[in-house]
Amino acid sequence: MSDHGEAFVVDPRRDVDEYIDLAVEDCAKIKYIFETHRNEDYVVGSLELKDKTGGEICHSFATEYGYGDHSLRDGDGFRVGRLRVESLWTPGHTINSMCYVVFDTRNSGVPHLVFTGDTLFVGDVGRTDLSGDDVWEEMSQRLFESLHEKVLTLGDDVAIFPAHTAGSICGSKISDREISTIGYEKRTNPLLSLSREEFVKDRLENEMPRPRYFRRMEKWNLEGAPLLKDVKAPELLEPKAFAEKLSDEKALIIDTRQPDAYAGSHIPDSISVWMDGSAYYTGLIIPFDKNILLVCERVEDVSTVVTYLRRIGYDNVIGYLCLGIDAWRNEGYLAESLTPMHVEELNRRLIEGSVHLLDIRERYEWDEGHVRNSQHIFLGELQDRLDELPRDVLVCTTCGWGGRGGIAASILKRNGFKVANLLGGIHAWESRNLPLVNSSS
Amino acid sequence: MSDHGEAFVVDPRRDVDEYIDLAVEDCAKIKYIFETHRNEDYVVGSLELKDKTGGEICHSFATEYGYGDHSLRDGDGFRVGRLRVESLWTPGHTINSMCYVVFDTRNSGVPHLVFTGDTLFVGDVGRTDLSGDDVWEEMSQRLFESLHEKVLTLGDDVAIFPAHTAGSICGSKISDREISTIGYEKRTNPLLSLSREEFVKDRLENEMPRPRYFRRMEKWNLEGAPLLKDVKAPELLEPKAFAEKLSDEKALIIDTRQPDAYAGSHIPDSISVWMDGSAYYTGLIIPFDKNILLVCERVEDVSTVVTYLRRIGYDNVIGYLCLGIDAWRNEGYLAESLTPMHVEELNRRLIEGSVHLLDIRERYEWDEGHVRNSQHIFLGELQDRLDELPRDVLVCTTCGWGGRGGIAASILKRNGFKVANLLGGIHAWESRNLPLVNSSS
Amino acid sequence: MSDHGEAFVVDPRRDVDEYIDLAVEDCAKIKYIFETHRNEDYVVGSLELKDKTGGEICHSFATEYGYGDHSLRDGDGFRVGRLRVESLWTPGHTINSMCYVVFDTRNSGVPHLVFTGDTLFVGDVGRTDLSGDDVWEEMSQRLFESLHEKVLTLGDDVAIFPAHTAGSICGSKISDREISTIGYEKRTNPLLSLSREEFVKDRLENEMPRPRYFRRMEKWNLEGAPLLKDVKAPELLEPKAFAEKLSDEKALIIDTRQPDAYAGSHIPDSISVWMDGSAYYTGLIIPFDKNILLVCERVEDVSTVVTYLRRIGYDNVIGYLCLGIDAWRNEGYLAESLTPMHVEELNRRLIEGSVHLLDIRERYEWDEGHVRNSQHIFLGELQDRLDELPRDVLVCTTCGWGGRGGIAASILKRNGFKVANLLGGIHAWESRNLPLVNSSS
Amino acid sequence: MSDHGEAFVVDPRRDVDEYIDLAVEDCAKIKYIFETHRNEDYVVGSLELKDKTGGEICHSFATEYGYGDHSLRDGDGFRVGRLRVESLWTPGHTINSMCYVVFDTRNSGVPHLVFTGDTLFVGDVGRTDLSGDDVWEEMSQRLFESLHEKVLTLGDDVAIFPAHTAGSICGSKISDREISTIGYEKRTNPLLSLSREEFVKDRLENEMPRPRYFRRMEKWNLEGAPLLKDVKAPELLEPKAFAEKLSDEKALIIDTRQPDAYAGSHIPDSISVWMDGSAYYTGLIIPFDKNILLVCERVEDVSTVVTYLRRIGYDNVIGYLCLGIDAWRNEGYLAESLTPMHVEELNRRLIEGSVHLLDIRERYEWDEGHVRNSQHIFLGELQDRLDELPRDVLVCTTCGWGGRGGIAASILKRNGFKVANLLGGIHAWESRNLPLVNSSS
Repeated sequence: MSDHGEAFVVDPRRDVDEYIDLAVEDCAKIKYIFETHRNEDYVVGSLELKDKTGGEICHSFATEYGYGDHSLRDGDGFRVGRLRVESLWTPGHTINSMCYVVFDTRNSGVPHLVFTGDTLFVGDVGRTDLSGDDVWEEMSQRLFESLHEKVLTLGDDVAIFPAHTAGSICGSKISDREISTIGYEKRTNPLLSLSREEFVKDRLENEMPRPRYFRRMEKWNLEGAPLLKDVKAPELLEPKAFAEKLSDEKALIIDTRQPDAYAGSHIPDSISVWMDGSAYYTGLIIPFDKNILLVCERVEDVSTVVTYLRRIGYDNVIGYLCLGIDAWRNEGYLAESLTPMHVEELNRRLIEGSVHLLDIRERYEWDEGHVRNSQHIFLGELQDRLDELPRDVLVCTTCGWGGRGGIAASILKRNGFKVANLLGGIHAWESRNLPLVNSSS
Repeated sequence: MSDHGEAFVVDPRRDVDEYIDLAVEDCAKIKYIFETHRNEDYVVGSLELKDKTGGEICHSFATEYGYGDHSLRDGDGFRVGRLRVESLWTPGHTINSMCYVVFDTRNSGVPHLVFTGDTLFVGDVGRTDLSGDDVWEEMSQRLFESLHEKVLTLGDDVAIFPAHTAGSICGSKISDREISTIGYEKRTNPLLSLSREEFVKDRLENEMPRPRYFRRMEKWNLEGAPLLKDVKAPELLEPKAFAEKLSDEKALIIDTRQPDAYAGSHIPDSISVWMDGSAYYTGLIIPFDKNILLVCERVEDVSTVVTYLRRIGYDNVIGYLCLGIDAWRNEGYLAESLTPMHVEELNRRLIEGSVHLLDIRERYEWDEGHVRNSQHIFLGELQDRLDELPRDVLVCTTCGWGGRGGIAASILKRNGFKVANLLGGIHAWESRNLPLVNSSS
Repeated sequence: MSDHGEAFVVDPRRDVDEYIDLAVEDCAKIKYIFETHRNEDYVVGSLELKDKTGGEICHSFATEYGYGDHSLRDGDGFRVGRLRVESLWTPGHTINSMCYVVFDTRNSGVPHLVFTGDTLFVGDVGRTDLSGDDVWEEMSQRLFESLHEKVLTLGDDVAIFPAHTAGSICGSKISDREISTIGYEKRTNPLLSLSREEFVKDRLENEMPRPRYFRRMEKWNLEGAPLLKDVKAPELLEPKAFAEKLSDEKALIIDTRQPDAYAGSHIPDSISVWMDGSAYYTGLIIPFDKNILLVCERVEDVSTVVTYLRRIGYDNVIGYLCLGIDAWRNEGYLAESLTPMHVEELNRRLIEGSVHLLDIRERYEWDEGHVRNSQHIFLGELQDRLDELPRDVLVCTTCGWGGRGGIAASILKRNGFKVANLLGGIHAWESRNLPLVNSSS
Repeated sequence: MSDHGEAFVVDPRRDVDEYIDLAVEDCAKIKYIFETHRNEDYVVGSLELKDKTGGEICHSFATEYGYGDHSLRDGDGFRVGRLRVESLWTPGHTINSMCYVVFDTRNSGVPHLVFTGDTLFVGDVGRTDLSGDDVWEEMSQRLFESLHEKVLTLGDDVAIFPAHTAGSICGSKISDREISTIGYEKRTNPLLSLSREEFVKDRLENEMPRPRYFRRMEKWNLEGAPLLKDVKAPELLEPKAFAEKLSDEKALIIDTRQPDAYAGSHIPDSISVWMDGSAYYTGLIIPFDKNILLVCERVEDVSTVVTYLRRIGYDNVIGYLCLGIDAWRNEGYLAESLTPMHVEELNRRLIEGSVHLLDIRERYEWDEGHVRNSQHIFLGELQDRLDELPRDVLVCTTCGWGGRGGIAASILKRNGFKVANLLGGIHAWESRNLPLVNSSS
């Protein structure tokens, strides 16, 4: 956000060129970089952006960071062009959560908009379990207070910009999910109409996954992440060179094609994570000590995937298969299929008992509705619970539409199970009017 | 704005591909095209967009248009995905002014945002003089009512999107001028805190130019504009071919380079309108029966300028000079300079009496501050008031920074005056602490 | 190719914007459009380019075209900037084949380069069977004469530009296949060292497929093809709308994803033609009276595929499935798999006799090496020879790497066969050192 | 140039991403980087490309370089895919000049094309004066031998690729200047038909400028240039910050707008070098110890100019004026004009004796034709010969079309002369049929 030759950025990603380009367009110097909290779901690009622009990094006093220029307390103010940015300490999601209120100094005293980080979302509020079970309730109480005593009192007409929209409200068009105000949230966000007691109860029931490999992000966001100019670019590898890299036991293939293509043909032992999912699901399942090798649908996808993986701390992508899976097969290397499954066939086989259905979605999705007699293991726990699965029957994985199911199926396949993936997932099942049960039934 | 496979667009420009691309990205069909009023400052692209997408055109019942699918009254509702769009008849700026309120049907009854057309701007409201002097006061009264009884009652937390941001809130970043809410306007927009009496008085004093060539837009927006596929593309012309076109008396050169470059060298009788200004100022000075020939800084500017000119109804750009003014001179065609003037020299010459200063800005700018002893003629009236200017002394034109002054200077030069243009304009004068007087002094 | 403000284009494609952009960059008017012959493998864009630029169309006198400006005889000359372009009548590939020799008038008398159309290729020469069996030998004789008496006599140092590189020698880098000279061809092209007798014999043995649906191109290239501005753009279709279109019996789905993805999941009865193959193979198998519906991997592929199909005369692409196969399945529509097959499994099943292998490559490929006991039916004849195939056993299709095999498999599947496609094809088979036999063994 | 997964690059520029992108498109590893000689007119990007791709650097044994992997002698061979690249030692232009002949190993023994560096150009040959006056004749003799005994004997049909087209024959279209063969050169290049005696005489008369600041390139190309990742990006500077930088006496402004715009208005003491000229002329006039500040027409020009300047060794661009000269003037900073002059006025003033004409072109241009009574000082010597110019009369600079004249005028203006620049230059003068004299007249 820029004004009169100065700009600030909230919670930048590590790939910071976009912010710089926007600032140049406005002929604005990036003066401040505000962090709403020590993020845990991506590597913040503050150091990267500071390195390239000289912007000063601001975050909460409540945690001792290994980097940064300003430790903010409640009410600290910064001038950016004719704007004033004021910090609002809003503990709850984390102890170091800050919101940033923007004023136009020409309309002094009237707050214009607020960056709410992971404190207040459109239609939702932040989770409170990340600081540990012992303070879960306390953090829930504090979030209630931060919301009702600080954020909501700014005024109904104040526009809100939650996390992940930092620096740009919108891609390029109006999405009704992306525009909101404090007043609109008060009128429509169900969590804001709860009493303190109800609110805390709701938060304590809000159990969410903590991807195991997300700890690297917490650590880097506390200490400061490596600069990307020091990270090696992945090597272009022809099939032969790619195959040679596999002999290293730390090597692991991630296949980012769609689950349909993976089902059709893939390199043995590769893990399926479709491209758009790679920015998140990789962190659920891939250890950081692996050297990642990529199989992509198209060569231009490589840089996209590498960017996604770096955003969540996987800097160790060592190479990619050039000219793709066709070249691999053409040169005589082994490829395999994963049995593709569609709902009609699954239904038939469930009836005849020739398949075991494994649902790897999150708990709350499972609770809302699942196929009778299916088994539930959350994707993030799958690797540790393989012994709960039968080895004598075809295991068919499922999720919402087939993406996460493909990840799970590829893990099972690596581990020697007979496996299929339901393309279409629970969505397709439901759309064909096949029955679901919920957890209370 | 799209939701669940359907989209609507408000007041599209004639170059509609951007809307279509955005819709395709969302896999959404453009279902409705809403016009906030019969626009007078650009050619609306409703027919163009309908031709390419099949979207249905909606506008006010209060005027009989020559095209369109729905004549809306107050309170008509349309479904777009899970959104509902409701028309709000808000006469004042024009008799046919409509605002469009958007609801999310999942939060029924709670308005989410409103497209306010030229009724309510961020920090301003619409002008009321366009319907003629006889109804100026009446329209001002109606605008007051439309604002206070309709728009402002939607709720403080409702986000507003005024005209010209239709279909996209923002280019790509947050500008503090582009985000507002009804509550924020109520707190900061000075016109909204006026009493009815004060408001009407203010509007009646709000005299604004009506560019003479803007009538084509009014006409086309009433009857429907030609489709661009039937408009001929400008021809690439080398200097010789360009020179030949000049023999036609309807030919007129527009030079869209910066005023500095025009001052340095230009083709005799060409009119200077810098590129970004061409989307507006052309309509002040260029008759529609001219065949426009372009001189641009770079060949890639041609399509930008052609788009700008078509937006305001100039479809008759017949050619452009390829390889620019250098090629023109290299082949021996005549080029001329316009005396460049900077503030220091102007000040010296004003003291010694060797220059006549002509300020061509709008009346309100002149009133706020001008150079003592300068003459004021608004740019839009210049052609008709040439006999008020001296022919025996150097006339130096001025405006804010030099752009409009360049237009004026090029007109004077065509008409045989000795002329210079103040590069830097009143801005530079003021920044160098040279004195200004205002109209009351 | 342009010089001093003028340009010419040889054998343009129908999507002509690229030529226009190149000419604008050089500030050159496209003055002539040369056709090397009545092309039979793509729709020539001469009329399209003339419509947009006014360039004059030149082709051979030896055929009566339904359009065009100049009927060229041997030795006609045209001036383009400082270049001279001279026609060389070189019958053989067709009766109307022309080559175009370019001279720099500053080095008069010395030919610089020659556009050789389908007369002389790098390492090959044109086929001579297209004019019919009765004149096959005669045309072979004439090609020999055209080459040895006309083209090769231009001089060893003359650079050659065969068909399909018209207007641009190279994408953007030097490929050793793209640069050649007459002398280099004389030294390395095996067909140029044959005696007349050997040459004719070789040509008469050179049997090549004539895709049945390529006749439209011959017709349009004789009479003039429709302008693209009159061709309707395909509609964006959500799953429901897409499904509705299928009820029309003229509707046919082409799925342009890779064969792996098609194998994993596809819409029943859709034909698999991978994107890059669609520019050619569509013409082998898809009748022109079909209304084509597209399933693409990504939404940005649609315009590429539409361009490819229009190049070969399929203007009837009526729509595409938006958001792809996932959306289709999610909404409960049926999807199916095609059994994916890899070489190891195929080998095993061939041994146990549980599969019938169908090789659909061209005759000459089959002759060079195929799997023992496989059956050969050329892809272009498959639809007419379905009754030669067994219906009681799994038919596995194969080709070079899996693309054409996928087309064949999708045709068989539509016709009720049990079918699989060998991903990797004969390439993978051979690379794994599995045995091939050739036709003489 | 790539083949089968391997590629080589000849004489890369420092901005190497283009080569890498082309290689990735072909899925090729850059294996070798060939230098044709120690270049003196740009900084070679070999080290840069090696750093990013691991390609091995190859250059001549005849000079001891401070970097590189292979010291080549005549006839060394390298394999790249199915290609073979053979070095040909061709001293003459420099002692370390090499040509690189490419063979297709499938056509063994037949050379396909040759990269001729600065040894043989289309229509010209290399200069021989760079090694010093004492060996000028010797080097001319050696160049004759290298051409006639080595390059020309490769065969008439061998295509040639001279320096500066390395890695890409063409931008994107066929230019008749860019395609040639040894045979075509033998038939059309006037220097190749000279006897040894005539050839040497011609070379010894071929006096060319040696831009004084080009020595950095020689040095860096001998020792190895700094990597760009260690070069600081220029700072975005608003007028105030820009003005502050000027107080440093090492600061120097380069204004890269067109000469017309510079004439209209510019910052005092700035040097005019139009954008496309900056890649060469900067080296004639700007010392390396200056800290360069840029004024560009558009913000997107900055990176182009920075790239151009880095190519010739100016890594010290410390900042650029954001929002350009308008912003500078608007904030009250001084701007000045340079009197623009057109031929008609010049002619008039020459007759009345009120102007002194200074022609700053190269000697050979002056010799071919200049305005009677004009003075000649080559641009590269201007700074050292200022005392030869009159200070009491307007000095009008001229060149071909106005670009170099603008550079000269800006230098004179900095040094206190009364100065104008002839826009249009000698081209316009001549095109208007005004008389020129040549040196022998």
